[in-house]
Amino acid sequence: ACTNSPSSSQQASSATYDASASSASGTAAIGGEVVEHPEQLPRVAADPAKVPPPPDYTGARTHEIHLVAREVLAELKKGVIFRFMTFNGQVPGPMIRVRQGDTIDLYFTSDPKNKYPHNIDFHSVYGTGGGAVALMCGPGQTRHIRFKVMYPGAFIYHCAVPDLDMHISSGMFGMMVVEPPEGLPPVDREFYIGQHEVYVKPPVNDHTEALFDMDAMMQEIPQYVLFNGAFKGLTSEGYGPMHAKQHERVRIFFVDGGPNLSSSFHPIGNVWTRAWRDGGLANVPEKYLQTINVPPGSCAVVEMDLPIAETIHLADHSITRYARKGLGADIVVSGK
Amino acid sequence: ACTNSPSSSQQASSATYDASASSASGTAAIGGEVVEHPEQLPRVAADPAKVPPPPDYTGARTHEIHLVAREVLAELKKGVIFRFMTFNGQVPGPMIRVRQGDTIDLYFTSDPKNKYPHNIDFHSVYGTGGGAVALMCGPGQTRHIRFKVMYPGAFIYHCAVPDLDMHISSGMFGMMVVEPPEGLPPVDREFYIGQHEVYVKPPVNDHTEALFDMDAMMQEIPQYVLFNGAFKGLTSEGYGPMHAKQHERVRIFFVDGGPNLSSSFHPIGNVWTRAWRDGGLANVPEKYLQTINVPPGSCAVVEMDLPIAETIHLADHSITRYARKGLGADIVVSGK
Amino acid sequence: ACTNSPSSSQQASSATYDASASSASGTAAIGGEVVEHPEQLPRVAADPAKVPPPPDYTGARTHEIHLVAREVLAELKKGVIFRFMTFNGQVPGPMIRVRQGDTIDLYFTSDPKNKYPHNIDFHSVYGTGGGAVALMCGPGQTRHIRFKVMYPGAFIYHCAVPDLDMHISSGMFGMMVVEPPEGLPPVDREFYIGQHEVYVKPPVNDHTEALFDMDAMMQEIPQYVLFNGAFKGLTSEGYGPMHAKQHERVRIFFVDGGPNLSSSFHPIGNVWTRAWRDGGLANVPEKYLQTINVPPGSCAVVEMDLPIAETIHLADHSITRYARKGLGADIVVSGK
Ligand SMILES: [Cu+2]
Ligand SMILES: [Cu+2]
Ligand SMILES: [Cu+2]
Ligand SMILES: [Cu+2]
Ligand SMILES: [Cu+2]
Ligand SMILES: [Cu+2]
Ligand code: NA
Ligand code: NA
Ligand code: NA
Ligand code: NA
Ligand code: NA
Ligand code: NA
Ligand SMILES: [Zn+2]
Ligand SMILES: [Zn+2]
Ligand SMILES: [Zn+2]
Ligand SMILES: [Zn+2]
Ligand SMILES: [Zn+2]
Ligand SMILES: [Zn+2]
Ligand SMILES: [Zn+2]
Ligand SMILES: [Zn+2]
Ligand SMILES: [Zn+2]
Repeated sequence: ACTNSPSSSQQASSATYDASASSASGTAAIGGEVVEHPEQLPRVAADPAKVPPPPDYTGARTHEIHLVAREVLAELKKGVIFRFMTFNGQVPGPMIRVRQGDTIDLYFTSDPKNKYPHNIDFHSVYGTGGGAVALMCGPGQTRHIRFKVMYPGAFIYHCAVPDLDMHISSGMFGMMVVEPPEGLPPVDREFYIGQHEVYVKPPVNDHTEALFDMDAMMQEIPQYVLFNGAFKGLTSEGYGPMHAKQHERVRIFFVDGGPNLSSSFHPIGNVWTRAWRDGGLANVPEKYLQTINVPPGSCAVVEMDLPIAETIHLADHSITRYARKGLGADIVVSGK
Repeated sequence: ACTNSPSSSQQASSATYDASASSASGTAAIGGEVVEHPEQLPRVAADPAKVPPPPDYTGARTHEIHLVAREVLAELKKGVIFRFMTFNGQVPGPMIRVRQGDTIDLYFTSDPKNKYPHNIDFHSVYGTGGGAVALMCGPGQTRHIRFKVMYPGAFIYHCAVPDLDMHISSGMFGMMVVEPPEGLPPVDREFYIGQHEVYVKPPVNDHTEALFDMDAMMQEIPQYVLFNGAFKGLTSEGYGPMHAKQHERVRIFFVDGGPNLSSSFHPIGNVWTRAWRDGGLANVPEKYLQTINVPPGSCAVVEMDLPIAETIHLADHSITRYARKGLGADIVVSGK
Repeated sequence: ACTNSPSSSQQASSATYDASASSASGTAAIGGEVVEHPEQLPRVAADPAKVPPPPDYTGARTHEIHLVAREVLAELKKGVIFRFMTFNGQVPGPMIRVRQGDTIDLYFTSDPKNKYPHNIDFHSVYGTGGGAVALMCGPGQTRHIRFKVMYPGAFIYHCAVPDLDMHISSGMFGMMVVEPPEGLPPVDREFYIGQHEVYVKPPVNDHTEALFDMDAMMQEIPQYVLFNGAFKGLTSEGYGPMHAKQHERVRIFFVDGGPNLSSSFHPIGNVWTRAWRDGGLANVPEKYLQTINVPPGSCAVVEMDLPIAETIHLADHSITRYARKGLGADIVVSGK
């Protein structure tokens, strides 16, 4: 038994998937599936405040984790329907938090309604493909692996089939945090955010799935760059901002899925008081960084102090992506 | 009273702006404003040797700083007229140098001849937009804020209106250095250099303003990448190289405005003896780095020893930008 | 006399160059040289296991090094003939390994059959162009310089003529490791790998040289991204994988020639136990990094532990380059 299993989070979030719309679909050269009621499509944006607690147990523990590959039609922004591929119906996939030396009992299932094969590469794991070979699943299949996490850090996990760039770009990435034996310093509040880029052709209309744009991905020129898979998703224009209180210290677990672009991660109106570059929790954190390079397929653990009440806008400081391609995640700091 | 105010530097540099040419302008789809005498357009390239001295006072001080947004037609290279947007008529904007715990009395004015709204985001400041909301100015307006700099480092400041990528790409960025209480180690010579990229369509002819290329910016494929806003500007092909003497140690305050590209900053013929990555002056500097990643919206403070007389060429080692897109800044080291 | 001279390695590798095919060539707008027997073209991929031993001598030593610029037609993949430019017929050029304080007696020769001028910029050297000015050679010429390596680190060397981006993209880069006085910690096995990107138009047919694509290079959108100059070159689809044994610690000397792209260097199925960012051997190495940013014109020295038998796939985690543009280098870890 384990309180940390992400299997209980958001995995039912694709329940609103409209099967009738799906059966009326036509996948033509000019567009994808037709959706009668796009407004009923599910939310894929992970709740950034849903962060597992730090390990509080003594000794090594075994965690039973369930991850489910789900292909989910959803609006990445109003009027743009995209075939997300997800872990547990959310982008990024559930954050997993364990301690160095713990064991993971990992069950991976592919939703029977899926069209594509999927697997998982955990950067936190020694072994061919980071587990990907052992976890390959066709629709309806389940695989199980057990492994020990042997080194500390914040690590991405992601689908790693041959078309992995397309699958990651469709949302198949998440984070596993392996805390060092002494744990992380306590903070007042934690958030979980993932950046990735979407390569998609303009949709035929606002009821038709926009098709993946392989040429754009080859050029590494995405149409959208998103936090948690939604256009301005974590702002008042989307699902609403995050909230914190003056004088708190907040920590962000940040994962850059890519598939191709580095993020120059910056908090507009604040500074990273403390930052573990590349998620390297075994290293001395850097202090007072304005902007931190986060390569695709990597992470950062960053913290801010909140001496004043303000609204902080998170951004990739490749700032056209923030101004015009959909990045948006705000933290509203209320005074006290 | 304060000797450190950038308001006294170069702010009159746009005085040669040709108002008559401006009144004869036609802003058509095929080109921008027509300039009768491009050779009379002002220089916007900041003098890289104009570096404020380190804080030499005891105790905290209040600095009165005046920054003026000026839209300035100038040649980015011979034959290419560009509508620069600047702080105080120069690119990068004036370097501001203070000490942690000091107070800034900041006056921001927008030139009455401007067309666009402007503001400033200081990465050195806690507060919504880094001050941008409080400093928003239409043409002819002035705003004032007072703030305390609470953490050390070398920080970019930049315009942060909704079209901020266009404004930064037009030149609206500069640097504020907040020295730690103990100061920086002494060196023999200091320089100040900013990199940014320009997205512009080919000009109709050499008397017509080249128009901004929004598509190129969306693709992050600039036509020009420049040091201090000028094509090969800090070399003998431009305004002339920098100068230093053998056996000196020189420090460069480097800011990457972007708006989108990381710089892989390298001194051809030398090495960074000591480097504060991302301008993080609170951290232990790294030693002997050949090339340092500087994200857009970030800085680096780097130093070189000069054991021999030589000419050092500064470059972004994304070397096509150096070979073909206009980067050029040389340091001539004379023997002694 | 010196056992470390790279002049003995692979320099005869272009001996199979087909002069008769060359004389039958036509360099037309639609294609390059015609090659009758592409299967007889030489291998340019450097052997990743050919790593010079660490300095084992006491006191400073003088090393006589011979580097030869060779333009070599070769297949970068089956059916794509490319005019490589190389040091000693291999990509990356020979790894040179010395100790801080040593002297290099460097002889640079340009093959008489070359068409282009060449030189060398060593990032490990103080002096204008890193030696490039003194080493400029037309076809058939030889130049000599002698220099002392004064600072430690892993440094790129590369051709630095005005078209240096084209020459580097054609293969003209390698690495010089300057060990600190105390040396590097011992490991069980070492490899040497270089990444670079190729800008080339689609070949007319599989017997005709593919032409360089200057527009693609200006856009920084390569057709191929390669390890050691060969498509999936260091895998079973190419020249075969590397080999190591369980429980060993392996070190990789990694150089990113660019000319333009950063590498997000990651070992699929493993983690960098210890990493010297940017080749900065004078610094404390970072621990447990999943992915490390390596700018163009820079290096990284990275290590892995091999607790289990597995196959490790090296990748740039800008993962479309790995999935679709040719990156491939595997390390097969056999159990024991
Ligand atoms: Cu998948
Ligand atoms: Cu990965
Ligand atoms: Cu502005
Ligand atoms: Cu900013
Ligand atoms: Cu060359
Ligand atoms: Cu170089
Ligand atoms: Na892994
Ligand atoms: Na595929
Ligand atoms: Na690009
Ligand atoms: Na700020
Ligand atoms: Na706008
Ligand atoms: Na050099
Ligand atoms: Zn658990
Ligand atoms: Zn509808
Ligand atoms: Zn916002
Ligand atoms: Zn002052
Ligand atoms: Zn004229
Ligand atoms: Zn120069
Ligand atoms: Zn030797
Ligand atoms: Zn044949
Ligand atoms: Zn492989």
